[in-house]
Amino acid sequence: MIGRLVIVGVGLIGGSFALALKQAGAVRSVAGLGRSAQAMERALELGIVDEICTSAQEAMCGADLVLLAAPVGQTGAILESLLPHLESNTIITDAGSTKSDVVAAARAALGGRIGQFVPGHPIAGSESNGPDAAMAGLYRGKKTVLTPLPENDPAAVERVAAAWRLCGSLIHKLSPADHDRVFAAVSHLPHLLAYALVDDIAAKPHAGLLFQYAASGFRDFTRIAGSSPEMWRDISLANRDALLTELDAYLAQLTTLRATLAAADGHGLETVYANAQRARREWIEAIEAGSPPQLHQDTE
Amino acid sequence: MIGRLVIVGVGLIGGSFALALKQAGAVRSVAGLGRSAQAMERALELGIVDEICTSAQEAMCGADLVLLAAPVGQTGAILESLLPHLESNTIITDAGSTKSDVVAAARAALGGRIGQFVPGHPIAGSESNGPDAAMAGLYRGKKTVLTPLPENDPAAVERVAAAWRLCGSLIHKLSPADHDRVFAAVSHLPHLLAYALVDDIAAKPHAGLLFQYAASGFRDFTRIAGSSPEMWRDISLANRDALLTELDAYLAQLTTLRATLAAADGHGLETVYANAQRARREWIEAIEAGSPPQLHQDTE
Repeated sequence: MIGRLVIVGVGLIGGSFALALKQAGAVRSVAGLGRSAQAMERALELGIVDEICTSAQEAMCGADLVLLAAPVGQTGAILESLLPHLESNTIITDAGSTKSDVVAAARAALGGRIGQFVPGHPIAGSESNGPDAAMAGLYRGKKTVLTPLPENDPAAVERVAAAWRLCGSLIHKLSPADHDRVFAAVSHLPHLLAYALVDDIAAKPHAGLLFQYAASGFRDFTRIAGSSPEMWRDISLANRDALLTELDAYLAQLTTLRATLAAADGHGLETVYANAQRARREWIEAIEAGSPPQLHQDTE
Repeated sequence: MIGRLVIVGVGLIGGSFALALKQAGAVRSVAGLGRSAQAMERALELGIVDEICTSAQEAMCGADLVLLAAPVGQTGAILESLLPHLESNTIITDAGSTKSDVVAAARAALGGRIGQFVPGHPIAGSESNGPDAAMAGLYRGKKTVLTPLPENDPAAVERVAAAWRLCGSLIHKLSPADHDRVFAAVSHLPHLLAYALVDDIAAKPHAGLLFQYAASGFRDFTRIAGSSPEMWRDISLANRDALLTELDAYLAQLTTLRATLAAADGHGLETVYANAQRARREWIEAIEAGSPPQLHQDTE
């Protein structure tokens, strides 16, 4: 049982964590801390938090577990503000989509207290933001990746893992660097590509005509371009090196495919398309079968 | 009432057209013609067609309306095979995703009989293929774009439009060239981008690890990469010039965005992301409001 849970940033991610733990009967009280007074009031109205705190001191008093669920660029400043009020038994975790930068910011902010910070990333989300988007079931059946630090007490890591398990989540562990390489490829790059496509089309003189004929394929392809620009700006900057590596690989792939198309090489096009179709089908089949991941050594 | 409807290629698109017209009580009998005996047998089993034809002669005898629903690269060869058996009252239409090449192939194949061919494109689909994917409701509420030719009798265009309306579809009209430019941007390019991303990831040495952490955003972004490689090879080749133009614009956009990211220009990134988010939200709101398209002069 978590006595006092503090959520810093009560939107989709932080709010859903609080709701899930409340639904599981695993938390006595939830305190909210955030930039937007309006969002905090709404979170209180919705029963996501029991109390709105207006200072770090107030929030951290007696805190058992603190979840940072603000854009990753704010991690350092938030931790600096929490540190003077950090009690010895409090564990802080986060839900940031990048980990190397979060760990660096946490080390800089917390210094010798870094052992009390257990980095994490729930692999769940939606293009909707804010407390109204929060739902108790958001993490059910979804993975949460923890990237524990050498300084973390195993018991601290287990406290964080246990909270996510109570949300219905499956715990995986990766190093911060491996985490960032993986998510640059399967999440950060697709977001950038989707934003780029919609911006590209919206800037054309005949954008109105184009959008008129965009259909369900376009809708799904660009769904992630409905995500928070501020959050994804921060993620892009925080994971810049890995994202540039993936973007360059993709640009090289597109350039090759452009040459294949320009040469009217139907066999070459069909090979790429068929490889992609097969790889995606195998991936979907593995998900639907609920089969264990092939590389299980990193998971528990 | 359509007396005899002939479907050439009884998969998702052709099968759904037949089922919708049957459900509307608007067709007396449906004949199927296609390459795959197995698919034709299945279409008969499913009640999509009433009769399997093994020759163009057999299929075209007494035909009122013929729908070509095979990959667009086969349009010329199919029309050549139909021409010797084309009766004067028969109208042929198609469901191809590209129109300039289809019209060129039709002119070459049909010569002086080109007036009997009314080009069309229903804006509906699925990543599933084959007769089992066919459904009567596929076209309900979706647009069908006709690109009539100067040689078409208005009554012939109206016969095709009426059939699509009976499927629940809304009729729009564009020139073949405008059609191809529009769909290069909002459909053909996204397909190419999605195929390229999945192929890129599948080719990496740690593809297994990557797919393990791919989540719902990746799933939606790549849904269209589950589409038929043969069909999309043909579309890519058929609309090569317009697709290259759109791909080049997108590559330029990505190259600019890469520089923005490399320079850690957070404001620049957020501007692109926020433009995209806003444009997409306005588009979705217009769809949900069922508002009339802004550029209504091309529609009826």
